[in-house]
Amino acid sequence: MPESDLQYLSELAQQLRVDSVRAAAEAGSGHPTSSMSAADLMAVLFARHLRYDFGRPGNPANDHLIFSKGHASPLLYALYKAAGAIDDAELLSFRRRGSRLEGHPTPRLPWVDVATGSLGQGLPVGVGVAMAGRLERSPYRVWVLCGDSELAEGSIWEAAEHAGTEGLANLTAIVDVNRLGQRGPTRHEWDTGAYARRFGAFGWHTVEIDGHDPEQIDHALGDARGTRGRPTVILARTRKGQGASEVQDREGAHGKALKNADQAIDELGGVRDLRVSVREPEEGVEPYRFETAPLSLPAYDVGEKVATRTAYGEALAALGAARGDVVALDGEVADSTRTEAFGAAVPERFFEMYIAEQQLVAAAVGLQVRGWTPYAATFAAFLTRAYDFIRMAGVSRASIRLVGSHAGVAIGEDGPSQMGLEDLAMLRAVYGSTVLYPCDANQAAALTVAMADVEGVSYLRTTRGNTPVIYQRDEEFPVGGSRVLRHSPGDRATIVAAGVTVHEALAAADELAAGGVPVGVIDLYSIKPVDAAALVEAATTTGNLITVEDHRLEGGLGDAVMDAVSELGPRVVKLAVTALPGSATPEEQLAEAGIDRHAIAAAVKQLL
Amino acid sequence: MPESDLQYLSELAQQLRVDSVRAAAEAGSGHPTSSMSAADLMAVLFARHLRYDFGRPGNPANDHLIFSKGHASPLLYALYKAAGAIDDAELLSFRRRGSRLEGHPTPRLPWVDVATGSLGQGLPVGVGVAMAGRLERSPYRVWVLCGDSELAEGSIWEAAEHAGTEGLANLTAIVDVNRLGQRGPTRHEWDTGAYARRFGAFGWHTVEIDGHDPEQIDHALGDARGTRGRPTVILARTRKGQGASEVQDREGAHGKALKNADQAIDELGGVRDLRVSVREPEEGVEPYRFETAPLSLPAYDVGEKVATRTAYGEALAALGAARGDVVALDGEVADSTRTEAFGAAVPERFFEMYIAEQQLVAAAVGLQVRGWTPYAATFAAFLTRAYDFIRMAGVSRASIRLVGSHAGVAIGEDGPSQMGLEDLAMLRAVYGSTVLYPCDANQAAALTVAMADVEGVSYLRTTRGNTPVIYQRDEEFPVGGSRVLRHSPGDRATIVAAGVTVHEALAAADELAAGGVPVGVIDLYSIKPVDAAALVEAATTTGNLITVEDHRLEGGLGDAVMDAVSELGPRVVKLAVTALPGSATPEEQLAEAGIDRHAIAAAVKQLL
Repeated sequence: MPESDLQYLSELAQQLRVDSVRAAAEAGSGHPTSSMSAADLMAVLFARHLRYDFGRPGNPANDHLIFSKGHASPLLYALYKAAGAIDDAELLSFRRRGSRLEGHPTPRLPWVDVATGSLGQGLPVGVGVAMAGRLERSPYRVWVLCGDSELAEGSIWEAAEHAGTEGLANLTAIVDVNRLGQRGPTRHEWDTGAYARRFGAFGWHTVEIDGHDPEQIDHALGDARGTRGRPTVILARTRKGQGASEVQDREGAHGKALKNADQAIDELGGVRDLRVSVREPEEGVEPYRFETAPLSLPAYDVGEKVATRTAYGEALAALGAARGDVVALDGEVADSTRTEAFGAAVPERFFEMYIAEQQLVAAAVGLQVRGWTPYAATFAAFLTRAYDFIRMAGVSRASIRLVGSHAGVAIGEDGPSQMGLEDLAMLRAVYGSTVLYPCDANQAAALTVAMADVEGVSYLRTTRGNTPVIYQRDEEFPVGGSRVLRHSPGDRATIVAAGVTVHEALAAADELAAGGVPVGVIDLYSIKPVDAAALVEAATTTGNLITVEDHRLEGGLGDAVMDAVSELGPRVVKLAVTALPGSATPEEQLAEAGIDRHAIAAAVKQLL
Repeated sequence: MPESDLQYLSELAQQLRVDSVRAAAEAGSGHPTSSMSAADLMAVLFARHLRYDFGRPGNPANDHLIFSKGHASPLLYALYKAAGAIDDAELLSFRRRGSRLEGHPTPRLPWVDVATGSLGQGLPVGVGVAMAGRLERSPYRVWVLCGDSELAEGSIWEAAEHAGTEGLANLTAIVDVNRLGQRGPTRHEWDTGAYARRFGAFGWHTVEIDGHDPEQIDHALGDARGTRGRPTVILARTRKGQGASEVQDREGAHGKALKNADQAIDELGGVRDLRVSVREPEEGVEPYRFETAPLSLPAYDVGEKVATRTAYGEALAALGAARGDVVALDGEVADSTRTEAFGAAVPERFFEMYIAEQQLVAAAVGLQVRGWTPYAATFAAFLTRAYDFIRMAGVSRASIRLVGSHAGVAIGEDGPSQMGLEDLAMLRAVYGSTVLYPCDANQAAALTVAMADVEGVSYLRTTRGNTPVIYQRDEEFPVGGSRVLRHSPGDRATIVAAGVTVHEALAAADELAAGGVPVGVIDLYSIKPVDAAALVEAATTTGNLITVEDHRLEGGLGDAVMDAVSELGPRVVKLAVTALPGSATPEEQLAEAGIDRHAIAAAVKQLL
């Protein structure tokens, strides 16, 4: 590289450091030292390897850059300034109320694909974006800047395994090995060989460099671009706080503005106003898209006994055949969740993620970054494994569809480890989420299709066992709606149920009616958003609500109902799972948990 | 090994297979094929290497055996039968209601340390048990039987990293590489070298063997016992369903009873009644325990401003000095959570788990298996990473203490990725959990100490910023209690708050009182169990409740309150975080979320 280029790259890196220090100083908080260590790496990437059209962030040929170490946001924003995407005044709005430049990056900024800041997530999401590139036959590359501390996260190794064995050569991880974590030295400090052995074992091409040497960086990035058949990890030895003696390679300097910012800025050569010219991607690149066709939804006859998981699988297969944007991901349980039906119908858009639920959800997030419509399914219980990823998908405003099978004690003999009993609470609490829980096959099929157009994180809860079909084919079930299944003017209470307990509620209502106690029944298939109008109507007319759910007492259907009617003050009795189940048949489980027809009827009688 | 021994081991393994087939056949479900592949491995372990006193499961010198592949429960129960711990009639009660022999093992059985069945958890928990062995200076060994499918879980590599770099030589993973997962071939099938490279890179001693050859197994287990300075993984090539042609090495035979069990039993040589004599451990081994001393709790003056996280850290340090059974674990954020105070006071019982929250929680579970009293802390937001482990700790009835700092929008500028906003919902939904949320330093200190004697999963939520001390030193805060902070006979409503919102509620109440609207204020520091009596009293006297919490609307304090008073039917208004926060100061965040003093006062006025 000519000396002038080297000089420019060093100057650019110093500017990025200075701007990181300035932004944090202005905010009075932030992570300048974690930004300074990676400044050379990013300067060379932007100046010589990244292909990105900042004027058109939606250009499908753009590379993708993900800061997995999201706390290095000052560096990212300094890069945006150098690239001309934001101005200096905006840079200095860092962390202020209303600013797009948040403490950790979010997609409020058009050049940010996903929110980061919970460590170990950027690389798994990058794997998903790289998978999309292969699906689209697009030449873009995915660059992920990782910290060394976050390599302790298991999710990083789920990503390493998937990318390595799939040979995702369009993916490059750049690890800023600055030796210091938040509270002290990392486990392996500057032993990049330790990381190289690990990534190498997982099938990656590994390069170890001095992360402050522009020539070594440039060579490594070129090497990554030229490597075929496997992803590359660049392990770059760096110094945290590089260039400012107050903080350079010192403990106790994580996550705070410098005490003497002006002195550090002087030491770094003062404020500059260099621009970096990021090369735009090739024109005329169009991502491959699969064809569409009319939707032919499966339909089930009333009275038939069909599991809602089966209807989900068959509906998803039909949807996949109809819509080329739909993709499905499996956590090595597709035979149980019934996602296998999609795999059989549309194998080229079915992804086996094996038993790695964090990577399962992260891949879905990555695929939707590129405009795909992903469904990711596993047992409801095992989605708890990915809760942090689901939470962050909410912060990213990512549109992903999660499907959890084997909900509740109704699974029977397998016991509590396999029972989804916390999933409604978990999913309801996610920002912007939608939570659906069908009770029959036609409803499950309709909701599976409806989810495709729901924005944000949506969740479908399915049941293992066969349940009777109670709705006609082609009935509509809008998200946010409910169905009144029993209603008479003399109703003395209303039972609110969803999923498997709808059938128990109907049986209880019939028993009560036969005994001269008419009660209403509502199928609350949309747990969030909830049909407040229908619940208020029921609360107003009968004044007594009984909620019944195959889920823990906390945070599920009962709480959703109470929330909708809380300002009216009806009496509400919640039936839910409170004890620790063991093994038993599904019927025994429902009885033991106190959520079967007999328990419901007894609760109504007691309430009245 | 003499031919007679080999013959015996083969016969014993066949018996374990037959009994696995019989138990599943009797139950009509279960995982016999996953049991049959590992029968030789476990036969040799029980006959020649395990040290265990089945008559005294509490013997501290016993080895620990964890079935990380919990679905191989028929094999485990067949082993118990061969060891004389259960009889054949009990074996055949497998998966029946009321039986201790559940679909997946739980500690209802005295020889089972922890519930398994969610894959990838047994090895991380085993790491915790091995850590305890080092702490206790005890010679026991930890044996963990893993499946090959579960090696895709990131948590396995968190465990591999911790055990490898800590050199936990008392830990042995035995991987049953039977090539077939639930829905088809695993990623690496019989390529044990792929796994050996990965574990080797993480610092483990690796041994690859034929898992059906007793001599190779015996040699490998002896090798593991003799290896110093690092853990051992035995990678054993096996065939799923070994010995029964109906299922051997066949797809589609996972997780179900054999169709022709009688034929398979014949093929396996028929029913036997062999016994295995498991060698008892050495006598006189006493685990090392640290000394105890009187507790000198930190105390704070009313009016002082102290963060509850600081009080937690100082109280934990005091507790650690007083009680030798207390240990603390950190997810590389001890300076933020303030667990560093414990680390400084009691370094020998402080464990740095780095940024690996699943292993963090699993290690706590493993340590409590051995009678230690663990506290594990990270940001509340990042505990979501370990939700499946927390859920399973509930199923295990494990007594662990979790501490989540940086709760809510009140953290300020760092933004939503760092805000714990789902933690109350997540923790409330866990079986048998206790959820505490102090508002001042004296209360935080008292609750930190109280948690030590709470059974099951308990959780303390702490706040980042300094809040005023409002309670006297030495006041008592029983779990399940609450505090009435404002109350007059003319109260027209009651505000229920916890943590940071208590201070906002007090300010709102003062403002309202000054305006001629007296309202009560309850500090609901115990979110679960909740003080139903106090809430019912408030609901009855004022009829109007306003809940206010720095948490999402779903599943938190408001829902806990509504649950307590639902059958009375008061009017309840819930104030909580509903939008997606960005960066802003703590005060701006509370105002923007509508949970500050002004929002509370406005809500009261509107309600009245």
